[in-house]
This record gives sequence, C-alpha cells and structure tokens, in this order.
Amino acid sequence: MAKVKLDEIDHQILDMLIENTRTPFTDIAKKLLISAGTVHVRVKKMEDAGIIQGSSLTLDYVKLGYAFIAYVGIFLEKTHQTKFVMERLEQIPNVTVAHITTGKFNIFCKIRAKDTNHAKNIIFQIDDIDGISRTETMISLEESINDKKRLMHMIFNEL
Amino acid sequence: MAKVKLDEIDHQILDMLIENTRTPFTDIAKKLLISAGTVHVRVKKMEDAGIIQGSSLTLDYVKLGYAFIAYVGIFLEKTHQTKFVMERLEQIPNVTVAHITTGKFNIFCKIRAKDTNHAKNIIFQIDDIDGISRTETMISLEESINDKKRLMHMIFNEL
Amino acid sequence: MAKVKLDEIDHQILDMLIENTRTPFTDIAKKLLISAGTVHVRVKKMEDAGIIQGSSLTLDYVKLGYAFIAYVGIFLEKTHQTKFVMERLEQIPNVTVAHITTGKFNIFCKIRAKDTNHAKNIIFQIDDIDGISRTETMISLEESINDKKRLMHMIFNEL
Amino acid sequence: MAKVKLDEIDHQILDMLIENTRTPFTDIAKKLLISAGTVHVRVKKMEDAGIIQGSSLTLDYVKLGYAFIAYVGIFLEKTHQTKFVMERLEQIPNVTVAHITTGKFNIFCKIRAKDTNHAKNIIFQIDDIDGISRTETMISLEESINDKKRLMHMIFNEL
Amino acid sequence: MAKVKLDEIDHQILDMLIENTRTPFTDIAKKLLISAGTVHVRVKKMEDAGIIQGSSLTLDYVKLGYAFIAYVGIFLEKTHQTKFVMERLEQIPNVTVAHITTGKFNIFCKIRAKDTNHAKNIIFQIDDIDGISRTETMISLEESINDKKRLMHMIFNEL
Amino acid sequence: MAKVKLDEIDHQILDMLIENTRTPFTDIAKKLLISAGTVHVRVKKMEDAGIIQGSSLTLDYVKLGYAFIAYVGIFLEKTHQTKFVMERLEQIPNVTVAHITTGKFNIFCKIRAKDTNHAKNIIFQIDDIDGISRTETMISLEESINDKKRLMHMIFNEL
Amino acid sequence: MAKVKLDEIDHQILDMLIENTRTPFTDIAKKLLISAGTVHVRVKKMEDAGIIQGSSLTLDYVKLGYAFIAYVGIFLEKTHQTKFVMERLEQIPNVTVAHITTGKFNIFCKIRAKDTNHAKNIIFQIDDIDGISRTETMISLEESINDKKRLMHMIFNEL
Amino acid sequence: MAKVKLDEIDHQILDMLIENTRTPFTDIAKKLLISAGTVHVRVKKMEDAGIIQGSSLTLDYVKLGYAFIAYVGIFLEKTHQTKFVMERLEQIPNVTVAHITTGKFNIFCKIRAKDTNHAKNIIFQIDDIDGISRTETMISLEESINDKKRLMHMIFNEL
Repeated sequence: MAKVKLDEIDHQILDMLIENTRTPFTDIAKKLLISAGTVHVRVKKMEDAGIIQGSSLTLDYVKLGYAFIAYVGIFLEKTHQTKFVMERLEQIPNVTVAHITTGKFNIFCKIRAKDTNHAKNIIFQIDDIDGISRTETMISLEESINDKKRLMHMIFNEL
Repeated sequence: MAKVKLDEIDHQILDMLIENTRTPFTDIAKKLLISAGTVHVRVKKMEDAGIIQGSSLTLDYVKLGYAFIAYVGIFLEKTHQTKFVMERLEQIPNVTVAHITTGKFNIFCKIRAKDTNHAKNIIFQIDDIDGISRTETMISLEESINDKKRLMHMIFNEL
Repeated sequence: MAKVKLDEIDHQILDMLIENTRTPFTDIAKKLLISAGTVHVRVKKMEDAGIIQGSSLTLDYVKLGYAFIAYVGIFLEKTHQTKFVMERLEQIPNVTVAHITTGKFNIFCKIRAKDTNHAKNIIFQIDDIDGISRTETMISLEESINDKKRLMHMIFNEL
Repeated sequence: MAKVKLDEIDHQILDMLIENTRTPFTDIAKKLLISAGTVHVRVKKMEDAGIIQGSSLTLDYVKLGYAFIAYVGIFLEKTHQTKFVMERLEQIPNVTVAHITTGKFNIFCKIRAKDTNHAKNIIFQIDDIDGISRTETMISLEESINDKKRLMHMIFNEL
Repeated sequence: MAKVKLDEIDHQILDMLIENTRTPFTDIAKKLLISAGTVHVRVKKMEDAGIIQGSSLTLDYVKLGYAFIAYVGIFLEKTHQTKFVMERLEQIPNVTVAHITTGKFNIFCKIRAKDTNHAKNIIFQIDDIDGISRTETMISLEESINDKKRLMHMIFNEL
Repeated sequence: MAKVKLDEIDHQILDMLIENTRTPFTDIAKKLLISAGTVHVRVKKMEDAGIIQGSSLTLDYVKLGYAFIAYVGIFLEKTHQTKFVMERLEQIPNVTVAHITTGKFNIFCKIRAKDTNHAKNIIFQIDDIDGISRTETMISLEESINDKKRLMHMIFNEL
Repeated sequence: MAKVKLDEIDHQILDMLIENTRTPFTDIAKKLLISAGTVHVRVKKMEDAGIIQGSSLTLDYVKLGYAFIAYVGIFLEKTHQTKFVMERLEQIPNVTVAHITTGKFNIFCKIRAKDTNHAKNIIFQIDDIDGISRTETMISLEESINDKKRLMHMIFNEL
Repeated sequence: MAKVKLDEIDHQILDMLIENTRTPFTDIAKKLLISAGTVHVRVKKMEDAGIIQGSSLTLDYVKLGYAFIAYVGIFLEKTHQTKFVMERLEQIPNVTVAHITTGKFNIFCKIRAKDTNHAKNIIFQIDDIDGISRTETMISLEESINDKKRLMHMIFNEL
C-alpha cells in the first residue's frame, strides 16, 4: 500500500466523497477546475489501489424504528467452533458487526433491534446457536458518536 | 414514519443502492425500465421521508494500515460529565463509535489504530480526559462481520 | 391507550383508590359531591381501558415472619430452556418476581423466606430445576423502599 | 405474631380477598353463609393483628406505556451516606423498590420507565445523587413472574 | 435459651474459663471465695443449658510449620451434590472450616497447609472431588486477627 | 521446631486433650498407666516447645442466638492503612477472624451476628472505619464444617 | 543452600557475569588481579552449589518481529488434567512461561507472537487442547520492565 | 530486520549458543569444522544485526530461597502516571517484569519473593507508590514452564 502517493487533487476529491459519496464527478470536476475524466481516472486509481473500497447507504435507524442497539458478548463451548458460529451469526441480519476478541468473550457482536422485546428474540436466536454456551448483553442507552468521517480525513491526510 | 409506503419499484431502487450507493440513476432506470427522472423523484421522496439519510465511503482499513480494532469501556467519575467526555472523545478521530451504556461501563467506544503501540497512545489520550476514572480495553483479533446490508434489506422489506 | 383522557374527577378518584383500594364508592362520591353511580361508571371505564387492572392485598411480611428477602441470579445451560424454567419457578410460591434479563444472568428473581435456613432450602429448590447451571444470591439487609404509590400518582397525572 | 390463630372461615375470607381486594363484604358473607358483620369483625381482627396491612392497586404498566424495567446496583462512596441516599431515591417516583444489600452493591433498586431514553434519564438522576460513586444497570427483557398471591396463600395456610 | 439467667458469679467463672479453659476449679473457687463444688455445679448448669459446648486446644500453627492459610471458593456442578461434597471435604483434615454460601461460590472453605506446594496438593485434592466444577483460591498473607474471646465476653455479658 | 520428637505417650496424651481439653491429668495418667506427674511434665514440655499454645472454650453459637455468619471482603483506600484498619476491626468483637489477603480484597474477615439486621449494623460499623473504601459481603447459609481436631491429629502424627 | 558462603571475590565475579555472561574468565581474572584458574574454580563451586544454573541468550524480540506479548488465563474442565495440559502447552514454542495459579485461572501463561493475527492462531491452538474449557487473554501494550539483573544482584548480596 | 539471511552454519552456531551461552567459540568451531575466527565473525554479524542482544545468567531460584512467584495487577488513579509508576517499580528489584496492559489492569507485573510474608512486604511497597490506587495479586503454585529456548529455535528457523 505504501506505494500510492496522493497529491493535493486526490485529497480534495476524497474530502468531497467523504462528505457525500454520491457527489457527481462533474460537480467535483467543476469545483476543482479539472475535467470529469480526470476525476474518474483518479477515483479509479484509488479504487484499484484499495484505498476506496466502495460506499454504503446510511439510514436514520431511529426514524426507521430500529433505535435499539445492544452489544452481545458470546462465550463458546470450544474455540474451534468459532468459524461455524460466525456463519450462523451472519444469517441473522440484525447482527451488523462481530469480532473475535481477547478478554472474557470469545466473540463480541453488535445488534440493532426495534425494542426490548425484539432484542430479546434476537438474543434468544443467538443463544440457541450450537456451540454457544452463554451470552452477556450490554444495552446502549444512546449512540452518541457513530462517525467514521473524521477518521477517514485523518487517514487520507497521512497518505 | 409509518406513513411512507414503499412499492415494488422503490424496493428495487433501494436494493440497487444498498449494493452500490454510487450506481448512476440512469443505470437504475434502464434496469427497471423507468425514466431516470422517476428514479430521481423516488429517491428524493425516500430521502425526504428520512428513510435514506446519506451515504458513506467504505475503506479497506487493513490495506490502509489501520487493522487494529479495540473496544474501550469507560468508567466516569460522575455521570453528569457524560456530555463533556463525549465532546472530548469526538475530538479523537480514531474513536469511530461511542455509546452511553448499561452494565458496568458508563461509555463504551470503538477505536481503530495502526498497531498495538498506536492503540496504547489512543487509549492514553482517552484515559487522560477529565472526568474519566478508568478504562478497560478489549482487543479484536479479527473483524469477522461488518455488514449492514443484510439489515438494510430486511428493514426495507418491512416498509 | 392514548385515547383515554382522564379529567379532574377521574384523577381524584384514582388518588383515593391509590391510598386505599377498599375505599367504598359511596365515600368517594360523598367527598367529590357526585353520585356513587358516577364513581362506579368512571372506575368501570378506567378498568375497561386497562388503566386499572385490579388490586392486591399488602401484608406486613416482617410481622408474618417472612422478613428475609433475597435476589437470585440464574445462569441457564441453554436459553431455549427459559420458558420451561419459568414454569418451574412459578411452582415455588416464594419466588414472587422473575425477569429475563440482560447482563450476566439469564433470569433474575426475588424470593421471600423466613430466615437464612429457609432461604437456603428455597435456593436449593431453584438450583435443582433442570436447565439451571448455577445461581448467585444477593441478600437484602433492609427493604428501605417498596412503594408503587408515588409512581402511580405520577403516571396518572400524565394521562 | 404467633398468638393469632386463623380458623377455616378466616382462611376462606383471606382467599377471596387475595383474589380481589375489592370483593364487597356482603358477597363474601353470602358465599360463606355468614353475616356481613361477621366478615367485617374478622377482617378487622386480622388487620389489627397485622396480618393484613392494606391493599394496593395493580396497573397494567405495559398498556400505560411504562413497560421498561431495570434493576440498578448502586456503589456508595461511604456507607454512612446510605440513609441520605435512600431519601433522595424516594424522591424519584420511578424507583419503586430499594434494598440495602450484601454482595457487590450497597443499594439495589428497581425502576420503571417508558423506554430506553427515559431509563437513561432516570439512571442519570440516580447517578447524580451525592454520595453515589457508581451504578450498574441490568435491564429486564421480560417480566415473566410478578405475583405475590401464591406466597400469600402459602403464608396464610401456615397460620 | 432465653430461660438461663446468669448472675455475677457465673460471669466471673466464664471470664476465667475464656482466658484459660484449663484453669482448675479449685483456683476459680479460691479467687471467687466460693467452694469448688459450687464452681462445678455452675459450670455443669451452663454446659447443660448449652452455653458452654466444650473446649479445644489452640496450637501455634506457625511454629508447627502450618503457616499457610488459604480460602477456597467452590463452584458445584449441581447443588444437590452439596451434601456429598461436604462429606468428601470432611475427609481432608486440612479443610478446617466449610460453609454453604450466597454469592458466587456454592461452598467456601478455609485450609491450612505447610507452604505453597502443599497448598497446591490440597487444592488439587479438592478440585478432584466429584461434583466440583471449579475452585478459586485466595491466599492469606497474614492472619492478623483470630480471636473469639472478645466475642465470648460480649455474648456472655448479654445473658 | 524440628527438634522436639514426640513419642507414643506424648501422642496419646495429645489425642485425649484434643478430644477434651479439660480432661484431668489424673484421668489421662490412669488411662496410660503412668503417673499424673509424668503427664504434667510432658504437657509442660510440649507447651514450652510451642506445640500446645493454650485452649479455648467452644460455644454453641446457634443456641446462644449468634447463628448468622458472614465473610466480609474489604477494599482499602491505600494499603499503608492496613495496620490502622486492623486495630479498628479488633475493637469490633463480632470480627473473630481477619486476614490480609491476595486477590481482589485487601482484608478478608469473618463476622458472627444474631441475624440479618444485626449483621447490617456490624457491616456498617466496618464500612465506616477510616481508610476503608468499600466492602463486599458473602453470607453463610450453613456452617457445615468447623473442626480443627482432624488437622490437629494429623499435625501431631507428623511430629 | 545456607552452607555456601560467598566472599568478596565471588561477589565481584557474579557481578561481572550478571552484566555479561560471556565475559571471558581471563578478563575477569585480570580485573580482579587473580588467576583465570581461580575464577574457574570459584564459578565451578557456585555452579555445583546450584547458585548459578546456566545462562541464556537474550534476543531483541521487537527487531525479530516478535513484538506481540499476551498473557493467557486458562480455565480447565478438571484440575487432574493440569499435567496433561502443561505437556501440550510445552509443545507450543510461543508459550514461554506457564504457571499453576491461585485466583480465577487454573493455569496462567505468557505468549510471544508476531502480531494480532498470529496471536489469534496461538490462542486458538491453546483453546483446542483437550481439557481446556475457556481462556481469557490480556494483551501487553508495552513491556516496560524485563530485567532480572537487579534481582540477581540483590540475591547474591544476601549470600 | 528482513535483510539478514542466516545460512546453515549460522543456524548451527545459534543452536549451540541457545543450549549454552558460554560455549567457547573454539568448541563451536571444532564441532562445525570451521575456524574460531569464522565463529567470531558470524556471531558478531548476528549481534550487529540485532538478532542476538546479549546473554543472561539463569539461577535456580528455588535453591536460592526465592521460590515464591506472584503476578500483581495494578490499577492506576490516572494513566498519565504510568511512566512515573514504572520508574518506581524499577526501583524494586523483586519486580522482574512489568507490562502496560489491556483489560482490567493498567500495569501487570511479576514478582519473585522468598515466601508469603516477603511477598506481602513487596506488595505493600508497590501499593504505596503514589498514583497506584489498588492492586490484585495472583499467586503461582508452580512454575511449570519457563523456557524461551523452544521459541528461540523457532524464531531462528524462520530467518
């Protein structure tokens, strides 16, 4: 990765895409006084270099009725079940993040649900996966920070 | 939020945007045999209704040298410092997520760093925020799932 | 529930019933300068709306020799046994409250016993239910607050 | 308390009152083929003996929008603040039960709230009481048992 | 037990026996200016009343090479094994005290050993009893208080 | 200590004293067919060698109304307060044993009380000692083993 | 061991060997104004007495790419598996230290790995040993002290 | 570090030094049928490359009366005291290893002592360092593995 050197133009393109992934290349081009083709070439270069991987929608989960977030720590019966359990977790769409971790848990995951009752059902689904011996849940009372933009700006500024 | 009813066309538009936020409206239109204007109107409608909030870049953090993920549990001296501490945490770009939580921690956050040593410096920065009495860190050995697409499909199918 | 609107008379009736469930309707009527029939109709209305569910005796457990209160946290072998275990817990009259909980316990319940020895026997009964792997007990040294009246006044004032 | 001996009639009266505190004495009298005055005398006797202390309304908290239950464990800075803290807790109507306990917590209490956000505010109120150093919250996913009737029948049968 | 009333003479006899169980009755008699027979009768009375149960040697465990004290918390697989496990523990002379306890352990016991290595062997013996799933050991760095005399004086003064 | 070698006679004397500290030397002498003087000399020798330190009364605490046993783990603010805190603990007669320990507690002690309420008061006394920041209590539901005789026989057999 | 008395010359030899195990005896001899033979004899004497056991290379693990250190706490299913598990641990070269411990873990070991991912694989190897039920990992963010020389000087000065 | 490539001769030299750091170069030379000068040059090369850092004596701590090993977890009042506390720890020769760690402790260290009482004094010294709020100790019952040789062979084989 160390080979790709970004210049000032690249940084300005990235800054705009971080703020709004869907900014049309023509808008970027106009603002930077370069051609849309140049924007296209440079974005392509950064995608090929693996700097940009893709883009994802951001939803207003609260408005959509999915305001309930919980972190679930999982104890496995045996660690060689880790891969199998991960595959089962992946079949539960409410599990949006899952890590193999150090500390007291084997796996640590994040779930989004509608409310307490919905969360209970998801946790029960997790608890019933073969190989899981016990789970411990920590409930979010407020998601105060969920923002990767600051980190992205910082990372790109280092390139 | 219950007022917005999505029809088949809306669902197909959303499905395509979930897979690639940057899909041009003309491509969507062509695929669904409708006009690009219709796509535009419908996306606008869903944005106005708060269903779609925006979009964000996804990076390959491993390739970018930011492969080290840790969860940091924070104990505050007094809870009325929560808001103040959150503002300080927000000034550390490596803190990408932070929750007020139940259970033993007052605040629970996720950090991305380059390696062990970098993580140590970030944790030290957090530890030194006024009002924080102690932190406990859990390190991710592998981020096996980080995917909101499955949840998005599920949520949209319920609308 | 949002449909039922309580007026000043309803609130005064509720306030009297909260203080003493057995207050005769004729006493309430006299105090509020309305007819007993009106009291009856309004109480009926609030019962039908689900605001009032019923009433229960309150005992002086200390005088009755049941002064020993303990909270018992239950770890299950597998969560799908939750319903079965709850049914067994319900057969032990000393278990007056039981919750499915987040955190380290699967089920958390409250027991009333005569003394240490009696509590031990009840805990042993719980421990021997199939599907329970372990319990942890926390003993109450003094029940300082046990009063739902303040909450009831507050809830009714919001209606 | 051992002096009061209950006879068959007393038990039958108690059984009816446990089921419905508001059962009119005339109904009880009719069913037991005794006079209403006798019922009155016997209930009075049991109240004087401290067997019956009073009665309380039972609400359908879910219908009333107060479905969120949490248990909050409190760590005090110094135990001689226990009495002071209890007085402050009593000023929060959502704290319906509070115990001085053995184990890791100094005080353990139960709160009823509307939802996650409401619970957060109540917990913050508790956290800000002088003398409280820290709290840990355990959230109820389902209140499966909340029933003192079985215990009451058992206690009365022993008298 | 409430029936036995102790007078001044009884208290003085007890005070002397607490200090030295082997004080000859003739010495006690001489000091209190009563007959040895009276001492004998009164001690007998207190033994019959269950106030005095017997007497035990006190050893200087440090001098005897048994200076290592540890507390061992035991987790059982199922509580109905408690009685069986206690019988096995009783066969290990180094287990001088064992309690059924509340909190995280099922059984909590005290052991005396020669040194670290000896303690390890005793703990291994305990760990291998059927029905024990796990133990946790807490080692005494210094036995600062081991004295029941103060309590005995206090108890007797209350009689 | 290794210098003192006990012979068969010494062992038999010790065995009798372990069973009953107050066994008169004349009884021991008669049983072993030796003179009372010999018994006296040998006991004296073992006392001088520090093998026997003294003797203590054993009470029937349950009959005396002191059936409530609890273990209290103490967290200090700073360890240099250990000695000071021990002196304060020694002024509470209900603290019969206290250790400086490894693990999570700084000091670990055993208390005997009359009942839950009495225990609460003793724990509050402990909690209020300067230098103690927090305590955790574990309550004994049954003292199943409290017997040093088996250990004494074993120790003496090794001499 | 108490028999070996070290004189000033011995101490000076040891001090030089502690600083550099490979210091040639001729260098030591020259510095102390004694013959190389004398150095040889005295070192031999100390080796025979068990004071010096041998010597080991010290590597710069960071430079060698083995900068990742973790402590792994192991819970066994049954303690009689301790010896078997230790033999398995010994087959993993990355486990450089392992102890049988008091407290919550049965075995506690130290591992050196290349990075997070490598550590995960080693922990998985440990987790999969028969008889191990669970592990908990604590990661070193910085090895600030790793130095036995100070202790060696102190120990030798006491001889 | 990747630049240094070791050949077969280097590996054989390292293998001999791992087994005995003090093996004379002439012995190594003889065994490998090369000149002592070659051995010297190659060892020098590996030292310059940082592969070999030095060598250290290994003592028989048990024979030297230092058989007592404990791990001490340290909680700091504030993390910015880490450096200061490490400097104080370094002044205690019995602290042979100390890490800044993730998980519940801020610093985790290993101590060697003579016995329980000696360990207590060292722990008290640690506890009294300014900035340390609390420590938790875990005692080693047996050091079953303490061997870096296996790891060294593995590391060198990878070069």
